[in-house]
Amino acid sequence: MNCKICKTKNISKDAIVNLPAYNLSLCKDHFIEWFERRIENTIKEFHMFTKKDKILVAVSGGKDSLGLWFVLNKLGYNADGLHIDLGIYDYSQKSREIIEKFSKTINRKLYIIDLKKEIRAIPEIKEKLPKKPTCSICGTIKRYYMNKATKEYGYNILATAHNLDDEISVLFGNTLNWNIEYLSRQYPVLMEYKDAFVRKVKPYFKVTEKESAIYTFLNGIKYIEEECPFSKGAVSLKYKEILGIIEGQFPGTKIKFFNNFLKKLYPLISNKSEEKEIKRCKICNEPSSLDICAVCNIKMKLNI
Amino acid sequence: MNCKICKTKNISKDAIVNLPAYNLSLCKDHFIEWFERRIENTIKEFHMFTKKDKILVAVSGGKDSLGLWFVLNKLGYNADGLHIDLGIYDYSQKSREIIEKFSKTINRKLYIIDLKKEIRAIPEIKEKLPKKPTCSICGTIKRYYMNKATKEYGYNILATAHNLDDEISVLFGNTLNWNIEYLSRQYPVLMEYKDAFVRKVKPYFKVTEKESAIYTFLNGIKYIEEECPFSKGAVSLKYKEILGIIEGQFPGTKIKFFNNFLKKLYPLISNKSEEKEIKRCKICNEPSSLDICAVCNIKMKLNI
Repeated sequence: MNCKICKTKNISKDAIVNLPAYNLSLCKDHFIEWFERRIENTIKEFHMFTKKDKILVAVSGGKDSLGLWFVLNKLGYNADGLHIDLGIYDYSQKSREIIEKFSKTINRKLYIIDLKKEIRAIPEIKEKLPKKPTCSICGTIKRYYMNKATKEYGYNILATAHNLDDEISVLFGNTLNWNIEYLSRQYPVLMEYKDAFVRKVKPYFKVTEKESAIYTFLNGIKYIEEECPFSKGAVSLKYKEILGIIEGQFPGTKIKFFNNFLKKLYPLISNKSEEKEIKRCKICNEPSSLDICAVCNIKMKLNI
Repeated sequence: MNCKICKTKNISKDAIVNLPAYNLSLCKDHFIEWFERRIENTIKEFHMFTKKDKILVAVSGGKDSLGLWFVLNKLGYNADGLHIDLGIYDYSQKSREIIEKFSKTINRKLYIIDLKKEIRAIPEIKEKLPKKPTCSICGTIKRYYMNKATKEYGYNILATAHNLDDEISVLFGNTLNWNIEYLSRQYPVLMEYKDAFVRKVKPYFKVTEKESAIYTFLNGIKYIEEECPFSKGAVSLKYKEILGIIEGQFPGTKIKFFNNFLKKLYPLISNKSEEKEIKRCKICNEPSSLDICAVCNIKMKLNI
């Protein structure tokens, strides 16, 4: 099949990427162009940030986060990296090495938070708190340190590389349960709040996992291909599988599902006017809905 | 496996039905008891009707509608039958015969509307109006005659046998597209409106297709097993397949998906207070949003 854009210029060039959701086949150069324009448009449409902002990208070492870090800098944004070394055996060691190398290639600053030093490595926390789901503990810890580090290192934006598949898998779960409270917060931009929370943005929320993987691959970026060993059997992976079946039958469903949610349901259920009172953790002074925040609570349970 | 209810009475009786969504295995008698209580509770919970109401059950000849007609009478309600003979080859002929026989067995009145006499048979309408989807034309026609007949024959309630799988397949489609307008009307009771619309109720909306089929089968009711020949490839059937996969992985999702929708989202989006103005069709005087109603419009296009 020929590249659709080349065709309009009367050039016959083989397409290497097929995007049924957009009825589009593209060559390497035009896919990269299409992808980058999509990210740029998303950033502008949702007023995520401008070239004046100081952005910290949360980098795990996977295809999405390394691709995001790369594309933001290519588009001229001011984006450094933040990695939380979770201490998950080989997986974390390899991830860290890849990220460190990559940061030198693109010549951007990289901050590393070593969870072993801050609390304990994830496998050890899991062992001591066996009743709590690992992904849930790990998520809480990552959110805490990402927000804290962004403020402390002098940045005002935290960018994460959640892609469309990640977002709709969460949306799908919250919809199957009609969890209105969670649905009312599922927006690609969470605004900064006083000096408690930094602005959190998801510039990849309109691109699928496949599109993101192709972009990273075509740019020759080396990333960690293994999944986290603790993610096996996660409900979100099953939802992704099911959504994959639906997309196969009705191409374009994924992006329409999320876009229409943002356009039609979200405005009906979001509480933008609500002025919330921010409490502070009595131990670390970070924002918390309880007297002691979730991370200090984990530390206490581990006698740290 | 033993029947769970028998077990509580220290009787060891083999279960013949397994209901993973409710973590329940039941023998024949206790399944029938469970099913009938479920229908009775649904009718009462949603104030669908009482024993004083005159109910007309829309009967297609399938397992759901015959089962519903049977159970309503068994529970002591005053329910007669209404069948619309769509003139779809053998399928309609067989359906009609089965229903006529069944009405004599349960000794209830049966009204038959012969579409050939009112307009034309569905295959002929389909041929003359090839651009419109058949299921959509057929649905419009059925809704029109069911509402009209219920009023004309002196009944005040129209009961249809839409089951949980039917309802969540529609809910799922409307959710994937976030069609708020349709979602705001997806309720198991549509209230009567002046002398234009009769009350429409769905007493089967909490039972799955499988549960309904078992109930009809266990009561020895003969029903038409073929699907309508025009329903092949319908999107709703694909949604049912996908929801079947989800239910297989997470038993109970179907009923929770619909129940939580009714409890959590529906109240936020329904416009109960809205006093709508009822227009009338200039030809037949039935309620219509346009000057000429959809059915008279079809007739005009067919030069009837």
